[in-house]
Amino acid sequence: MTDPTPAPRRVVLDCDPGHDDALALLLAAGHPGIDIAAITTVGGNQTLEKVTRNALAVATVAGLDDVVVAAGCDRPLVRDAVLTDPRTHGESGLDGPVLPEPAVALDPRHGVDVIIEAVMAAGPGTVTLVPTGPLTNVATALRREPCIAARVREVVLMGGGYSKGNVTAAAEFNIYTDPEAAHVVFSAPWRVTMVGLDLTHQALATPDVVERFRALGTTAGRFVVDMLDFFGPAYRAKQGFPAPPVHDVCAVARVIDPDVVRVRPAHVAVELRGEHTTGMTVTDFAGREGQELDHLVATELDVARFWDLVLGAVGRLP
Amino acid sequence: MTDPTPAPRRVVLDCDPGHDDALALLLAAGHPGIDIAAITTVGGNQTLEKVTRNALAVATVAGLDDVVVAAGCDRPLVRDAVLTDPRTHGESGLDGPVLPEPAVALDPRHGVDVIIEAVMAAGPGTVTLVPTGPLTNVATALRREPCIAARVREVVLMGGGYSKGNVTAAAEFNIYTDPEAAHVVFSAPWRVTMVGLDLTHQALATPDVVERFRALGTTAGRFVVDMLDFFGPAYRAKQGFPAPPVHDVCAVARVIDPDVVRVRPAHVAVELRGEHTTGMTVTDFAGREGQELDHLVATELDVARFWDLVLGAVGRLP
Amino acid sequence: MTDPTPAPRRVVLDCDPGHDDALALLLAAGHPGIDIAAITTVGGNQTLEKVTRNALAVATVAGLDDVVVAAGCDRPLVRDAVLTDPRTHGESGLDGPVLPEPAVALDPRHGVDVIIEAVMAAGPGTVTLVPTGPLTNVATALRREPCIAARVREVVLMGGGYSKGNVTAAAEFNIYTDPEAAHVVFSAPWRVTMVGLDLTHQALATPDVVERFRALGTTAGRFVVDMLDFFGPAYRAKQGFPAPPVHDVCAVARVIDPDVVRVRPAHVAVELRGEHTTGMTVTDFAGREGQELDHLVATELDVARFWDLVLGAVGRLP
Amino acid sequence: MTDPTPAPRRVVLDCDPGHDDALALLLAAGHPGIDIAAITTVGGNQTLEKVTRNALAVATVAGLDDVVVAAGCDRPLVRDAVLTDPRTHGESGLDGPVLPEPAVALDPRHGVDVIIEAVMAAGPGTVTLVPTGPLTNVATALRREPCIAARVREVVLMGGGYSKGNVTAAAEFNIYTDPEAAHVVFSAPWRVTMVGLDLTHQALATPDVVERFRALGTTAGRFVVDMLDFFGPAYRAKQGFPAPPVHDVCAVARVIDPDVVRVRPAHVAVELRGEHTTGMTVTDFAGREGQELDHLVATELDVARFWDLVLGAVGRLP
Repeated sequence: MTDPTPAPRRVVLDCDPGHDDALALLLAAGHPGIDIAAITTVGGNQTLEKVTRNALAVATVAGLDDVVVAAGCDRPLVRDAVLTDPRTHGESGLDGPVLPEPAVALDPRHGVDVIIEAVMAAGPGTVTLVPTGPLTNVATALRREPCIAARVREVVLMGGGYSKGNVTAAAEFNIYTDPEAAHVVFSAPWRVTMVGLDLTHQALATPDVVERFRALGTTAGRFVVDMLDFFGPAYRAKQGFPAPPVHDVCAVARVIDPDVVRVRPAHVAVELRGEHTTGMTVTDFAGREGQELDHLVATELDVARFWDLVLGAVGRLP
Repeated sequence: MTDPTPAPRRVVLDCDPGHDDALALLLAAGHPGIDIAAITTVGGNQTLEKVTRNALAVATVAGLDDVVVAAGCDRPLVRDAVLTDPRTHGESGLDGPVLPEPAVALDPRHGVDVIIEAVMAAGPGTVTLVPTGPLTNVATALRREPCIAARVREVVLMGGGYSKGNVTAAAEFNIYTDPEAAHVVFSAPWRVTMVGLDLTHQALATPDVVERFRALGTTAGRFVVDMLDFFGPAYRAKQGFPAPPVHDVCAVARVIDPDVVRVRPAHVAVELRGEHTTGMTVTDFAGREGQELDHLVATELDVARFWDLVLGAVGRLP
Repeated sequence: MTDPTPAPRRVVLDCDPGHDDALALLLAAGHPGIDIAAITTVGGNQTLEKVTRNALAVATVAGLDDVVVAAGCDRPLVRDAVLTDPRTHGESGLDGPVLPEPAVALDPRHGVDVIIEAVMAAGPGTVTLVPTGPLTNVATALRREPCIAARVREVVLMGGGYSKGNVTAAAEFNIYTDPEAAHVVFSAPWRVTMVGLDLTHQALATPDVVERFRALGTTAGRFVVDMLDFFGPAYRAKQGFPAPPVHDVCAVARVIDPDVVRVRPAHVAVELRGEHTTGMTVTDFAGREGQELDHLVATELDVARFWDLVLGAVGRLP
Repeated sequence: MTDPTPAPRRVVLDCDPGHDDALALLLAAGHPGIDIAAITTVGGNQTLEKVTRNALAVATVAGLDDVVVAAGCDRPLVRDAVLTDPRTHGESGLDGPVLPEPAVALDPRHGVDVIIEAVMAAGPGTVTLVPTGPLTNVATALRREPCIAARVREVVLMGGGYSKGNVTAAAEFNIYTDPEAAHVVFSAPWRVTMVGLDLTHQALATPDVVERFRALGTTAGRFVVDMLDFFGPAYRAKQGFPAPPVHDVCAVARVIDPDVVRVRPAHVAVELRGEHTTGMTVTDFAGREGQELDHLVATELDVARFWDLVLGAVGRLP
């Protein structure tokens, strides 16, 4: 990328907001390096209905009046929906800020069709998929139109981890919720960048970060502060974190500026049958069984650069 | 059904022809008790491309010039496609007869959408789904439009078994090929009639049956004879049967005349994790663990009545 | 067996009495074709303590004053013990008859050591193992002294089934209780004759059979009647059988007179990982995956000959 | 341990030498804080025959002329033996040094009986089990004599890991080889200290450590150097380590001086059914599902103190 002003990256944000999804949307909306092709929603942190409403509200906060927002799958590919613990994101899925009435209309198409059309309508190697919820929509899109695998630029997702989980000792929420979909996504012939818990636990919205958002003095800045004022104590109470990790934001940050997130090549298999490990992203950096190191796994966050990026982008919003 | 001339049953045939699928299509086409809403195809006995071509050719033989034929999913929901053993159905998936050039055009819509539209466009309790291949299309339709579960009349499928398998000692081909899809179908809130191997192994196309088809003296009759002349020896060589069982035909026959196939209430669970049993339809007639006997499982075929029904219907074709 | 008076078959009865185990013991004790090397007990139908007490009492009823009775493993190889439903065998594991004070002393050795010593002390190909409970003792013996596999004459066990279960739709109690032990036994380099539910459900103690026991007019005969008077209604209430199947007796009968039980060669794999099928004896009569048909599976009982054999033997007891 | 000279800890070393097992034996033999009740062997790094021969040879090098050495189980509880990669430990299981003719005689008893007798003969809370191979012997002892669980002082084992494996991405060799045995051990009502890969990868025999062994100028010192001269390059070639980790030694060191190895309470479940995770020790430090943190998991090694301890002990040997 020697071009001093590269064209912005065209992305589909597939999400289930959720506090960290919401901040990820604001980052994408505010940064000139991102061109949002569509926002699609998926049942996850809350029901499809609630996360879709949240997505419309956040798009409104971000001033994305013309963005395509479409609802996708309301439950996992094979399993029953995992009941979301409302302690983390609240009953609405985005407790804390007062959500504005959406100024953005819901697209009548199915989210899976919107993903396929966004990818196939753009030139080859153009669109980047950024899933930050369960992978149901993306897996279903792959099955319905296998050609998207060769046509996307890349997939940068938030999910999984290589040394820990959060729902169970071994599995992270997005993957645990729909492990079969994750298996489809990690098995498809495309390169996935997995931004998992090992990385996102480095992205903590500490009090000084909250203060920087407050200091923006904007509507969007106050919205972020209100979110973190709910999300922080919730995370502290439930998971024992001093400050809440903003998982999904890291995936968008990686798309904007690869240097913010260091990655290593690895093979990733999703465990579907374990008694204690279902939904684990079994990450092999060594290719022990001769498997290709066909994906990238995020290992290290440049914390200062990350927050500068996020604050800069949110600061550009109304 | 005390009405002497009940309205014909409106069905979607979801299939992967396949010799027995083809005969099932001919039965449906020739019998006045069936009104074909659509034929959808799914990768199974052969690739999606081949089974779709076969479906168009068989529809042509049956004179169904205006029928909707649409191609659905080309591979299972989660797993890799099972490589079909070409010894059973031949390289084309329908070796034996000379296939006519299709006079029927392929519908451009995705088979899954066609299933959903056929069910939702008709009145509640009107459309019967008759899947005779892997259940990928039906499961995908359920996930995309959960409302079809309450709206169909019923689901009568060929697949599974309660005391035996054919791909493995425990699993039948259609379920084995896409067990996750079968799990979705058997877990949905609708009543499934499972016409499995225990039933279909009673429907053997013995030499005298073949002679009856030959004696019809029609194009369709000769087509069936040519199919059985290939399918019989293939089945004998591979599975050790004296005469080939025409599995899929039994499901259509059950829809036309419930008295042809005796059923018992049962709970059916699809095994997804076994080392030796994946794809088994674990059938509990007793509800040992308190599970509802929410499905019907075919146990006994009225053999004479069955062949009379099939011969009569094929005899009505050109 | 053209020899008019063959030497009696030397057996180790490994059991968890249990009503049908008890009748199996009486058959072995009363028939001149059996020479009991030892009786070993295993936790199963009831706790090890209770089944061992029952074994001593039944041996006393049978007049086996000098027989070796030794207690073996009190719980499965890997899993927690399955809680026995006391409705089938009662709180004692042998409700119904009044049990005599044992006149037989418990051998201080561990049952597993007794099995090994019985097999290794006798000549090669001499001792037949007849397990009629969970296979924990036999599997542990195989691991401790692998040489027993080549030295036994054969293993004839009651357990499993090829088309049904009784604890679950797929699994029979003895195998379900300790599937890992069953896997070890079916994987060892010896020939197992599996006398499972498909066979034993043909051995029903109908009222006329009960009358024949009553007509013996002996202590042992009355003991059997008292057992069946409890076991019959219990089985009827719990499993819906008109008359109770005397499972374990069939295995001993097969050892005495092979013509009583018809068998077919098969491969048997024990499912260890299924969600709905754990403990199933997956029986392949066709060797679909190239596996050797290395075991024998009982399929058909000569019912008249069976009861004549059992009545004759019990009639010889005091 | 305020007593300035506490009584030495009585231990049973259950092992499969193996280079690091051998150094663990030398540490135990040379340190006054350890009193070896018995050495038992188990098939693992090499066949039972080879590791038993190695144990006798190492005991001879250590001058343990009167120690009890007994051979235990030759294969896992349920599974087939994992074929050991001879690249790590060589064809003998202990390539490198010239092994002396054993001056120590093999005890004729079974290793499992020796473990039970050692624990039951000593006072309650006296004997510590230190398994450094697959857990087959210990699990079998638990099943044969469940009372040992309450009678041992504790179990300190080398095996597993909480964030990585070495045979697979998820599983460590000792646990992977016999996961069912590991499940039995971690499920028993005793406290296990798991010294796994996260800890042992901190115990690298770097060149300066090798030099310190060489500088001892003793037979035992030269023996260690000869072992490390084989083990180091083998480990480097196969696993990419700059210097070889001496896994098993860490468990013995923890018994001698708890301050060498920092631990945290955790629940540990052994995965038995995963497709990619079988043999993983799923470690939950948070008790997410309400499980008791009933074991201790080693997290941090005091590297300098560790090597001082090991060098001091080996230096006391002839």
